[in-house]
Amino acid sequence: MYKTRLYAPGPVEVPPQVLEATARPVIHHRTPGFKELFLRTRTRLAEVACVPGDDVLILTASGTAGFEAGLLACVPKGAKVVGINAGKFGERWVKMARGYGYEVAELTLPWGSAAHPDAVRDFLREHPDAQAVMTTHSETSTGVLHDVQALSGAVRETVPDALFLVDTVTSLGVSELRPKEWGLDGIFSGSQKGLMTPPGLAFAWLSERAWARTDNLNPTFYLDLRKERKQQRAGETAYTPAVSLVAGLGAALDLLLEEGIEAVWKRRETLNKAVLAGAVALGCRPYAERTSPAVAALYAPEGVAAPDIVRGFSARGMRIAGGQDDAKPVLFRPSVMGYADRYDALVIVAALGEILLELGQPVAPGQGLAAALGVLG
Amino acid sequence: MYKTRLYAPGPVEVPPQVLEATARPVIHHRTPGFKELFLRTRTRLAEVACVPGDDVLILTASGTAGFEAGLLACVPKGAKVVGINAGKFGERWVKMARGYGYEVAELTLPWGSAAHPDAVRDFLREHPDAQAVMTTHSETSTGVLHDVQALSGAVRETVPDALFLVDTVTSLGVSELRPKEWGLDGIFSGSQKGLMTPPGLAFAWLSERAWARTDNLNPTFYLDLRKERKQQRAGETAYTPAVSLVAGLGAALDLLLEEGIEAVWKRRETLNKAVLAGAVALGCRPYAERTSPAVAALYAPEGVAAPDIVRGFSARGMRIAGGQDDAKPVLFRPSVMGYADRYDALVIVAALGEILLELGQPVAPGQGLAAALGVLG
Repeated sequence: MYKTRLYAPGPVEVPPQVLEATARPVIHHRTPGFKELFLRTRTRLAEVACVPGDDVLILTASGTAGFEAGLLACVPKGAKVVGINAGKFGERWVKMARGYGYEVAELTLPWGSAAHPDAVRDFLREHPDAQAVMTTHSETSTGVLHDVQALSGAVRETVPDALFLVDTVTSLGVSELRPKEWGLDGIFSGSQKGLMTPPGLAFAWLSERAWARTDNLNPTFYLDLRKERKQQRAGETAYTPAVSLVAGLGAALDLLLEEGIEAVWKRRETLNKAVLAGAVALGCRPYAERTSPAVAALYAPEGVAAPDIVRGFSARGMRIAGGQDDAKPVLFRPSVMGYADRYDALVIVAALGEILLELGQPVAPGQGLAAALGVLG
Repeated sequence: MYKTRLYAPGPVEVPPQVLEATARPVIHHRTPGFKELFLRTRTRLAEVACVPGDDVLILTASGTAGFEAGLLACVPKGAKVVGINAGKFGERWVKMARGYGYEVAELTLPWGSAAHPDAVRDFLREHPDAQAVMTTHSETSTGVLHDVQALSGAVRETVPDALFLVDTVTSLGVSELRPKEWGLDGIFSGSQKGLMTPPGLAFAWLSERAWARTDNLNPTFYLDLRKERKQQRAGETAYTPAVSLVAGLGAALDLLLEEGIEAVWKRRETLNKAVLAGAVALGCRPYAERTSPAVAALYAPEGVAAPDIVRGFSARGMRIAGGQDDAKPVLFRPSVMGYADRYDALVIVAALGEILLELGQPVAPGQGLAAALGVLG
């Protein structure tokens, strides 16, 4: 018998306190009780996002809709936007923008690489008319954490009027993220990653200068950040919200703020490093040039098919992610981004050792554990 | 941040499927829906207890009440009973029987030791008029598994008419238990141990010859096994049952029977052995002469206070048990009897290594893990 353990880079394992909150009787969303819950949750969400006092909008939708709503809210259709594509999610925003009729200049980088400020600067110089630059912060498909603070500087320097819109789906609550200090113009995320809540809620924050450009734009009917901002400031939503998920989110935010958001970042970084170190000691190689704490992207050892590793975890009740697209044969991606502690990192490394042994690799599972322990301290 | 992990020898960690079942809307107990659930649950409980087709009664009470109901049901008050006391729970039954006015002959054994058939035989020869012999199967306080099969032979040989009543609170669903093949006359257990359900239900099974003695006895009003048997055969209970816990128990039994009860026994034995081996490699010494898979009873290393180890687990979000009574300063007792797999055994050993290091012991946590892995294979 194996327990069920969710070590995928989203949805993540959800704390029992959050599950308990989502299981509470549904309350009507036009009541003082919900209003109080919603306002408190929004306040605490803004704290976790390091934009205290600002509007972080909560949408009943998946994270993708958050980015979509943000782009439509503050960039006129037909405008030129630059998309940094270094993985599956960078690619998604390029596709979405093209679908809406934006003129997209795409800076394509090899999977696994991080966007270098100099390269971005060079590219932007060729596109001085860009009205927005889009990137992922943590590119979940490759395990890369782009240095959006440095990239923000490059954007401001070369195309000062362009908005810098950042997919923070797997960095919010996972990795250091300071939207205002870093000069970002929009961050967009979802509930089922660092915020340890079941999927179904998207989050959107815009800078003041981004909000200033939302006057005459054409959002979709459902994804209308201006309408939502007006309603949400009053503790309501434009459309019926997922009240159970809001209750769960509230419980999750309490846990994160009790620990302290900087301690959360530190923990997740350490756990992910421990998984990587354990895997390296077992003959795997990190995939990412610059590591995101959201996921340990790893090459399978020479001669081992990555999907067999994923299956090995699955046979032990553990759900990790494989590689996407061309990376599928070589990449596997366990994650300790959710409700996970040091012992989860050890569990992943122990299982990986067993799996590689089963697959004929000359490894000693204990070596992986020793390396992970070395990082965990 | 540490997750919450329940590694105590009961209540144990409950599978999410069981929690989900207990969280379902309460159904009224005098309905066809409950009747169906209850009858199915009783059938499956009898399978897990290796008495298929027999009556295993489900009482809304803790396990202690099950033993009490059994003793009162088939042994007349004032009769002589023999109590084997080799720990906290053996002692409990002696106290209970004395409280009810039975004449109790107590075979007291040192904590940590197993009852040897020869010693029991010798003792029983001095009490040929005993109408019942009481023992624990798994003595949770000491981690000892008494060989009730051999003891049953000793009882039958020396006092053939005495009933052999066995506390199986932490052996039902944990360790091999074959009440009929072994000639037991009563087994009594609870929901929150091997059956991985929240506390609140007691179980009682009697042999045919024990039932044959229940005619004119005086149970309490609430604990009346004859009344319950009549009702429960019809899918009802004498008093309002804990319907939510019955639903949870049903889900737990499904999990156990899906795995197969012999596979469950084997798993729990292996996991407990792995914890013991890991602990031994870290300088701890097993406490039990004959190991119960329900709990790893361990002496703290020389110079370490066992309560400090318990506190160390607690500081990591893990609840284990300490020693009881005189064993408190020296004994600690983690358990993998509940919803636990091989990775839980590793987690316990990893934490123990860290704790002993913190307490100044010259241990290498990796050595404990290696020893545990050696057992887990």
